[in-house]
Amino acid sequence: MAVRVDQGLVMLSDTRTNAGMDNIARFRKTFTYVNPGERAIALLCSGNLSITQGVKSMLGRAIKDSALDPDVETILNCPTMHRVAQIVGEAMCAMQGQYRSTIEMQGSAADASILIAGQRRGGKPRLYLVYSAGNFIEATEDTPFFQIGEHKYGKPILDRIIQRETSLEEAVKAVLVSMDSTLRSNLSVGMPLDLAVIERDAFDFRVRTRIEADDEQFATLSQSWSAALRKGFEDLPDVLG
Amino acid sequence: MAVRVDQGLVMLSDTRTNAGMDNIARFRKTFTYVNPGERAIALLCSGNLSITQGVKSMLGRAIKDSALDPDVETILNCPTMHRVAQIVGEAMCAMQGQYRSTIEMQGSAADASILIAGQRRGGKPRLYLVYSAGNFIEATEDTPFFQIGEHKYGKPILDRIIQRETSLEEAVKAVLVSMDSTLRSNLSVGMPLDLAVIERDAFDFRVRTRIEADDEQFATLSQSWSAALRKGFEDLPDVLG
Repeated sequence: MAVRVDQGLVMLSDTRTNAGMDNIARFRKTFTYVNPGERAIALLCSGNLSITQGVKSMLGRAIKDSALDPDVETILNCPTMHRVAQIVGEAMCAMQGQYRSTIEMQGSAADASILIAGQRRGGKPRLYLVYSAGNFIEATEDTPFFQIGEHKYGKPILDRIIQRETSLEEAVKAVLVSMDSTLRSNLSVGMPLDLAVIERDAFDFRVRTRIEADDEQFATLSQSWSAALRKGFEDLPDVLG
Repeated sequence: MAVRVDQGLVMLSDTRTNAGMDNIARFRKTFTYVNPGERAIALLCSGNLSITQGVKSMLGRAIKDSALDPDVETILNCPTMHRVAQIVGEAMCAMQGQYRSTIEMQGSAADASILIAGQRRGGKPRLYLVYSAGNFIEATEDTPFFQIGEHKYGKPILDRIIQRETSLEEAVKAVLVSMDSTLRSNLSVGMPLDLAVIERDAFDFRVRTRIEADDEQFATLSQSWSAALRKGFEDLPDVLG
């Protein structure tokens, strides 16, 4: 999930992938790109892993090529975040064009989606959601967050908490408790988690960290949240009379 | 959703059906059958409405026929709750056999599922989930609740609260706040709600009520829960440091 509030951008992903219940693996789904002081971008991937790895590899190859040939356009040198979304969408299109029909012939799903969160110097913090077809939408003032992948369990708490005025600190807590709910209710989501935070106009990452299964701070937050829910629940007015 | 705790059974459903986003209607999804002092049963329906209405109509016709001919087996005169589940499963099978292929030829989904919660004199409170194929599973001590239909948004709070020792009062509050979360996050779920409660060994309904959109008690519960979540959230330890 990725959140855009006035103070900046907060991104959180898990690391579990599965090809059927008996084929579970751990893969990073958040990838960060930064030119400190100029731009910071995070990509969060969901869906067919071969497709999203292919997209990431195309983006990385362009960055490598641009070191030798500055004319090569990359997500780090292109003029706007909107252009970043187009470049990611074009890579998605290329991968889908190359593999979708054969993937589907094998009975697998080629669908994938990618969240792009970032800010470049001279622009505002932006948040995009790129679909399998390479088309994309941008989060607006009315839509402060996007979720991809297994999103339903964790949505109610985001719906309740996240607004554009929400502080970065609160947004980080909200994505963590949202993920905590999803972790408890769905086996296809699993620790560790990758958290990234971009503060507005910093053009760099304030946080880029992996939260391991034994992370004490996350355990404390999770327990505090459970206790608060339990307490809040006990304090509810009786209804049965 | 339906919950089975040591003290009895709690059932809650919404009333929204939709055939596409632009074709929304209101239909009751909870149906109760009672022979006071002998047995009380609630059915909760989800999925293709023509299928579940057909099942309900078969069950009702048998009850009507049994008034003239006591040999006709019904969910109110059959020997066990397990046999009730079989009868509902047989009706489901009959409806699917009659309509499934033509429904699917039209491009619609014939899937349906039905929760059965009840207790007959001489037996324990039972909770079953009947699938489209007419097969069914029973809630065990390890599985205190079933959800059908749009279930993910409301599952985390049930996962946290409901255990077999949970009181009926707490179970009622839990299903209501669970539904409240789903109502906030998904347009395909809508008020009013139908709530039913069967206390263990009462062989009757303690509660059979419709909660309308302007119900004050539900509004108070919903607001209290929002306030408790907000308060609990604000009290969480800081993580950004």
